[in-house]
Amino acid sequence: MGGTRFFFVNGAEALLRTLVAADVDVCFANPGTSEMHFVAALDRVPGMRAVLGLFEGVVTGMADGYARMAGKPPVTLLHLGPGLANGLANLHNARRAASPIVNVVGDHAVTHAQYDAPLASDVVGFARPVSAWVHSAVSARTVGADTARAVQAARQYPGQIATLILPADVAWNEGASPAAALAPVGPADVSADAVAAAVAAVRSAGSRAAILMRGQALQDRGLRAAGRIAAATGARLLCDTFAPRLARGAGRVAVERLPYFAEQLVESLSTIEHLIIVGSKPPVSFFAYPGKPGWCTPEGAAITYLAHAHEDGVAGLEAVAAEFSAKPAPVELVLPDEPEGPLNQFTIGQVVARHLPENAIVSDEGATNSLGPGLALATARPHDHLSLTGGSIGQGLPLAGGAAVACPDRKVVCLHGDGGAMYTVQSLWTQARENLDVTTIIFSNRAYSILQIELSRTGARDLLGEGDDKALSMFDLSNPDLDWVQLAGGMGVSAVRVHDVAEFSSAFRSAMNQRGPRLIEAVL
Amino acid sequence: MGGTRFFFVNGAEALLRTLVAADVDVCFANPGTSEMHFVAALDRVPGMRAVLGLFEGVVTGMADGYARMAGKPPVTLLHLGPGLANGLANLHNARRAASPIVNVVGDHAVTHAQYDAPLASDVVGFARPVSAWVHSAVSARTVGADTARAVQAARQYPGQIATLILPADVAWNEGASPAAALAPVGPADVSADAVAAAVAAVRSAGSRAAILMRGQALQDRGLRAAGRIAAATGARLLCDTFAPRLARGAGRVAVERLPYFAEQLVESLSTIEHLIIVGSKPPVSFFAYPGKPGWCTPEGAAITYLAHAHEDGVAGLEAVAAEFSAKPAPVELVLPDEPEGPLNQFTIGQVVARHLPENAIVSDEGATNSLGPGLALATARPHDHLSLTGGSIGQGLPLAGGAAVACPDRKVVCLHGDGGAMYTVQSLWTQARENLDVTTIIFSNRAYSILQIELSRTGARDLLGEGDDKALSMFDLSNPDLDWVQLAGGMGVSAVRVHDVAEFSSAFRSAMNQRGPRLIEAVL
Repeated sequence: MGGTRFFFVNGAEALLRTLVAADVDVCFANPGTSEMHFVAALDRVPGMRAVLGLFEGVVTGMADGYARMAGKPPVTLLHLGPGLANGLANLHNARRAASPIVNVVGDHAVTHAQYDAPLASDVVGFARPVSAWVHSAVSARTVGADTARAVQAARQYPGQIATLILPADVAWNEGASPAAALAPVGPADVSADAVAAAVAAVRSAGSRAAILMRGQALQDRGLRAAGRIAAATGARLLCDTFAPRLARGAGRVAVERLPYFAEQLVESLSTIEHLIIVGSKPPVSFFAYPGKPGWCTPEGAAITYLAHAHEDGVAGLEAVAAEFSAKPAPVELVLPDEPEGPLNQFTIGQVVARHLPENAIVSDEGATNSLGPGLALATARPHDHLSLTGGSIGQGLPLAGGAAVACPDRKVVCLHGDGGAMYTVQSLWTQARENLDVTTIIFSNRAYSILQIELSRTGARDLLGEGDDKALSMFDLSNPDLDWVQLAGGMGVSAVRVHDVAEFSSAFRSAMNQRGPRLIEAVL
Repeated sequence: MGGTRFFFVNGAEALLRTLVAADVDVCFANPGTSEMHFVAALDRVPGMRAVLGLFEGVVTGMADGYARMAGKPPVTLLHLGPGLANGLANLHNARRAASPIVNVVGDHAVTHAQYDAPLASDVVGFARPVSAWVHSAVSARTVGADTARAVQAARQYPGQIATLILPADVAWNEGASPAAALAPVGPADVSADAVAAAVAAVRSAGSRAAILMRGQALQDRGLRAAGRIAAATGARLLCDTFAPRLARGAGRVAVERLPYFAEQLVESLSTIEHLIIVGSKPPVSFFAYPGKPGWCTPEGAAITYLAHAHEDGVAGLEAVAAEFSAKPAPVELVLPDEPEGPLNQFTIGQVVARHLPENAIVSDEGATNSLGPGLALATARPHDHLSLTGGSIGQGLPLAGGAAVACPDRKVVCLHGDGGAMYTVQSLWTQARENLDVTTIIFSNRAYSILQIELSRTGARDLLGEGDDKALSMFDLSNPDLDWVQLAGGMGVSAVRVHDVAEFSSAFRSAMNQRGPRLIEAVL
């Protein structure tokens, strides 16, 4: 890339060539007028795939799914402050997933900012809450260098969101040159003291020790090391309720996913005397409730950080494992029988587990219907499980799409609650357009079912008025019922509605035997 | 309200009672777990209507439409930082419309903030770019007072966005009391000097003077005063391309809507020697373009601010008009004939203008297809016209819904481009649920047509690669075509697709003769 220093182009082209040189080669986009020169550069510069989303929450959600599966950043292209704003919720989820993403947000020309035109806004202000790195480019001459820094920031271990604001005149002005890729900041070494503390902890506490993992530790190398420790000492292996990515199924080392509700979380951790953290944080309840605990680790339990999120948790686990000679006990393949009985999350889970192909990717925003598939999939064929890291619903559909872009040879199955799926329903159109190999299962219970539960758990149900269903109507998605067959058909995705297990099984098997997007509305 | 000082309830109920006491009586909501006590209070406290939206951009867009038509603030209920984030783009539009809105954003309990749970985020950071007033409540004892201040801030003339963040424990804790409404800050007086300058300007410049109006000035009293000035002096009456609300049609005073594109804007203003501003700003181009002007008022033209946005523009116009004795010339009713020829924005506009009932509300996000209806509606039956104030597409559908909530006895017609309509397509579900009297016309050109135009206008079309349609594919909404009949049907709104003028006219007349939501996909 040294020669490119003398290669003058416009700012947009320099930006794009810098991205491609840094191995950023997929752009999830929803452009507008201020991004026209970026779009033209997409056409001219080889090596960048462009994937259109019809709403920015789709764009950023796809970027997150891509980043989790590709292990490298994509770039998003967003239209000024409001375009970025539409993508913020899924950037919140991506931030919690530590997904590396470079956002390029077009803005008014630097010379136009003085006029406070209708679309002018505080773009930096919108970007800051989700971005580890924010910069507004000021000149075509420096935008190549800015871009290299943005990619470096996104790649800082374990992954961050970097937002580069690109004023229109910076994009169209000439005199720019691409910049060479910068070396990203890799994981920091774990400390020898932390390794020694973890070794001592698993030796002394045995099955009363637990290792709570996140990030790379939940992939093959990390899991094998953790499995050796568990086999030798009896230590439990845990992951967060919402881990960004977890390798699961036959041949892998089993990890317990922590439960969602605080009282179950407390119960699950009640025997722990020593909690060893690898890339995660001590478990807390997802929400606070009157009179219930927020902190869920037992009082008196010791906590050791074997690896903070920015440290090399895999190496840490391997260093601990090196003290033991046991072999990990891999999960054996056990496929459920074809189920009978009513259509519910458990029978659906059994069908999915029975027929899920090897190396599939499961994007799970099943919400109150995630437990059934989660149980059944534990011993299914090996697969990756992606979950709702930041709790902002409307992530599962685009996450599935982005994963399919990253891994075109792997089947993607998306498990989704109906309420959450409506947030980024436009995702289905991109699935159709790109012929992404995603099968979506909508759990159609026609309610914000989690909120019906939470109304009681927060104590608010006791405070309702009499004979007035105004509160309950806020969680009711019937009146009218959503018709997912029509919604999917309206965006070019073929869909079917099923009411019993036999219909569901037939539809799911059919989807597994074909390529391309399908949707199954499972009426519960 | 004095007695309520001694009336102790929980924080959520105090908040809600304070809102109702301040005449805020519609809540557009998309709640989550942290808002359960607010939802329970909705049930218990009389006087607050609750309208559910399946996505927060729908919620905030409806709030804007309601505020523009009701002339008073609604409240939104949003779920933590990401829920607010999903609503930001339409809050940007609402900010540009000077719509009074109170946002209540639930947050984690104050005691839970220390744990950085998955949904924790910088809520104040998300709120700031769109909010004139932001406050995070810290105690049930003070949340009533906080709420009164929030409403006061929203009502500050001409209207602002106030965001009150409500931690879950502030909502559920007892010991709160409602607060009495505070007097809002009304419009400031215009200065006598400004009135004198405006009088002199219209006297001396005559038809080379123009009065550019926004806000209240575009309603009946303001228009009558402006019409007297125009009748006496020949001064032109202008409004911005995207005025929040404009009273139009027969019996009203005609106002020229400024064109969108900069060169047309420059041409339109080329004869102006004196520009008089009432609640607006000097016109600038919507975007910047290489080598084209951003500032569109002729060099050398004088500019007088008769009224800044926070001043009483109506009184200012009346003070100027008092110097003259002419009567305004009202628009005469001229309805187009039933058109023949191809289905396009002009024939659609003629049908709409011919059959639009008196006192209808037109929510216009027609984008490249707005001109035809705009021309034809100029002499139609009197109606209100609402437009895309902040330029962030995806506003028209929820704006129409909110207007229908505010004005249940008026027919609402929504003109919408297909690309923009996808952003907040979930709006249709709320229309069906609440049986809102909205007829939506989708201009189905299966493209981001404005961007196809802007690609040339920015000069970027000349920079495309050869034989590569990657850039053009970013503006193409075919492959697959969106099927609006299925999309609407999937959300309970009956819809029809039309391909010619006769079909369109039949569908539109039918919709005008019935109540409730309808959608017409006009394939162009």
